[in-house]
Amino acid sequence: MDIKNIIKIVFLLTLLIFNLFSVAQNIKFINADEFVRIGKADSELNFHRIEDCTLREMPKNIQTLAKHSSGIAVIFETNSSCIAAKWQLADTAYYANLTPVAQSGLDLYCLRNGEWQFVNVAKPKRGLCQEVAIISNMDTTTKQFMLYLPLFNSVTNLEIGFDSSAWAGKPKLLGIDVSKNIVVYGSSIVQGASASRPGMTYTSIVQRNLHLNIINLGLSGSVKMELALAKYITSIPAICYILDCVPNTSPQQITKKTYPFIKYLSMSKPKIPILIIESIFRENGYFDKEVKDFVKRQNDALFKACKQLWTEGYRNIFYLSSDNLIGKDHESTIDGTHLTDLGFVRISDKILPYLKRILKEYSTNRD
Amino acid sequence: MDIKNIIKIVFLLTLLIFNLFSVAQNIKFINADEFVRIGKADSELNFHRIEDCTLREMPKNIQTLAKHSSGIAVIFETNSSCIAAKWQLADTAYYANLTPVAQSGLDLYCLRNGEWQFVNVAKPKRGLCQEVAIISNMDTTTKQFMLYLPLFNSVTNLEIGFDSSAWAGKPKLLGIDVSKNIVVYGSSIVQGASASRPGMTYTSIVQRNLHLNIINLGLSGSVKMELALAKYITSIPAICYILDCVPNTSPQQITKKTYPFIKYLSMSKPKIPILIIESIFRENGYFDKEVKDFVKRQNDALFKACKQLWTEGYRNIFYLSSDNLIGKDHESTIDGTHLTDLGFVRISDKILPYLKRILKEYSTNRD
Repeated sequence: MDIKNIIKIVFLLTLLIFNLFSVAQNIKFINADEFVRIGKADSELNFHRIEDCTLREMPKNIQTLAKHSSGIAVIFETNSSCIAAKWQLADTAYYANLTPVAQSGLDLYCLRNGEWQFVNVAKPKRGLCQEVAIISNMDTTTKQFMLYLPLFNSVTNLEIGFDSSAWAGKPKLLGIDVSKNIVVYGSSIVQGASASRPGMTYTSIVQRNLHLNIINLGLSGSVKMELALAKYITSIPAICYILDCVPNTSPQQITKKTYPFIKYLSMSKPKIPILIIESIFRENGYFDKEVKDFVKRQNDALFKACKQLWTEGYRNIFYLSSDNLIGKDHESTIDGTHLTDLGFVRISDKILPYLKRILKEYSTNRD
Repeated sequence: MDIKNIIKIVFLLTLLIFNLFSVAQNIKFINADEFVRIGKADSELNFHRIEDCTLREMPKNIQTLAKHSSGIAVIFETNSSCIAAKWQLADTAYYANLTPVAQSGLDLYCLRNGEWQFVNVAKPKRGLCQEVAIISNMDTTTKQFMLYLPLFNSVTNLEIGFDSSAWAGKPKLLGIDVSKNIVVYGSSIVQGASASRPGMTYTSIVQRNLHLNIINLGLSGSVKMELALAKYITSIPAICYILDCVPNTSPQQITKKTYPFIKYLSMSKPKIPILIIESIFRENGYFDKEVKDFVKRQNDALFKACKQLWTEGYRNIFYLSSDNLIGKDHESTIDGTHLTDLGFVRISDKILPYLKRILKEYSTNRD
């Protein structure tokens, strides 16, 4: 190594140490417990999607998945010129179809003129223990921020960093109406595979657009319509249920389970609309004849169950066909099944107007 | 462990061994050298973007990056009912803003009624040595396929698998016109950060749309407009050059380097149009005042250099402003800078009509 390289390394190390020192000097970290958390149906101070006592009675795989923090966000207000975060992850699993940012990172939005606008992400490094500066050099007017948590990992601790001289706390007027919950029960697509970052799942796009509190019960590979889940869902005070639960279930299982599952929801909560969404058509199904046939039979079985329920007079069941849900160019997925941001924006554009109509129709029921 | 679980495990292991055995029995692998490779300016039988003798004279960081296979694809025709791939990667680097599929995976398209349609991806596992079934159960009519290689990794060997009884070879009529090259020189965005899969970079979207051979010279973090690059670019027989090289260069460096770089290209090849693309506005620049100012000064410096060249009579220089290149909803990036599939589709929608107009105007020059 020549002298030039040694000088360069010494200079970079000095810079690094200076930076670490100055960050430590100027940033104060506040535990996320001090702020508002949304995307949860319970008030436990963790980032699990189902409360612990209920979870203990659920199937084993759900016990793990429900601890992934998909759809959970922390909302706070501050006049800080910078925002940083420290967070602790539970695992370092490998997903070929996810970015580490989506799997284990954080995603910051700011409320500007009443609309949520993307600010920046906190990119995770390899490993479990994370500390990242998210945004700097902002003006110091008071702003409301929403920080989305990882989609496919659990967060065991979260602290948010601000200028040491800044104020940070709960917003007076929240940019999400936490009194109005929508529960979305679904597969890995609902959990967020394969959004590029935590805020780009369709549940979060819908949430920002409607300013409502969406509880994401996307359970990757494990959406089996167990009655335990139906019971849990009806225990959540909600203004709408969305079921996007076809992908992980065989046509035979859909035939067997959909009818009792939806009937239970519909009977228990006749004043709450239930929106059923068909499975998107798998892109490889345009080439693989078996996949094509399988998805068709899945959606046919779903429709048949709903038709039966309509015939029996269950009126609060709404249905969104998969036709054109994600466009016609075959480019909305990463792997034929899981939606990218392109797919999530397109499916949100289809869900939003229908959902708004349903919510408007049912708002008089609730009031 | 109870007897039920032991039986289950033995059954699954038997199934796995049987499957491995049956795949080995029914699939034949053919080295990619037997097919057509596109996205390369040279005819070397590797997956590097710059030929080895030229590369040896380039800056060190370019020597590594140019071996990443971004934009390179293999085209073949087959009547096989399935397609598989074995490929060997060079490294296991960590990128927080890339999926493993984009970084190290493969992406398969099929030519259907004259249009390239997505089929499926080959998802890489952890590690360097990969073997994946991409698609099965297809009808056995002869079809043309294009298999994109990894965006941020080097491939040292690639074999494509077919039914042992099927035919596979070079297509008679290629779905990409390899006699017409467009060279795109740019940063990590051009190289493909952060497309979800190899086929979703804007260079590949444009390539499929125009059926032309695009040489992707996206060099992540290393687009410094060195004269060595300008010389290399002019050595490639091309119908257009696209320069998207603002992001990695300071306003001062842009002022210093853009003028001689573009002048060299324009003087050397006055009949080849040069399309200059401004840097997209960084999303965090809406909050971080320093970023906002920096990007503005970058684009201002770029425009000033082009204006000077226009004034001096260089007429083959075209310019695409960053206004509305990626939409107005602030959702097109993973991290404020790198485009997701949503951003890449949007920027392609802006580039394509302008590029078509330029190519049409210059087609008479060439003929």
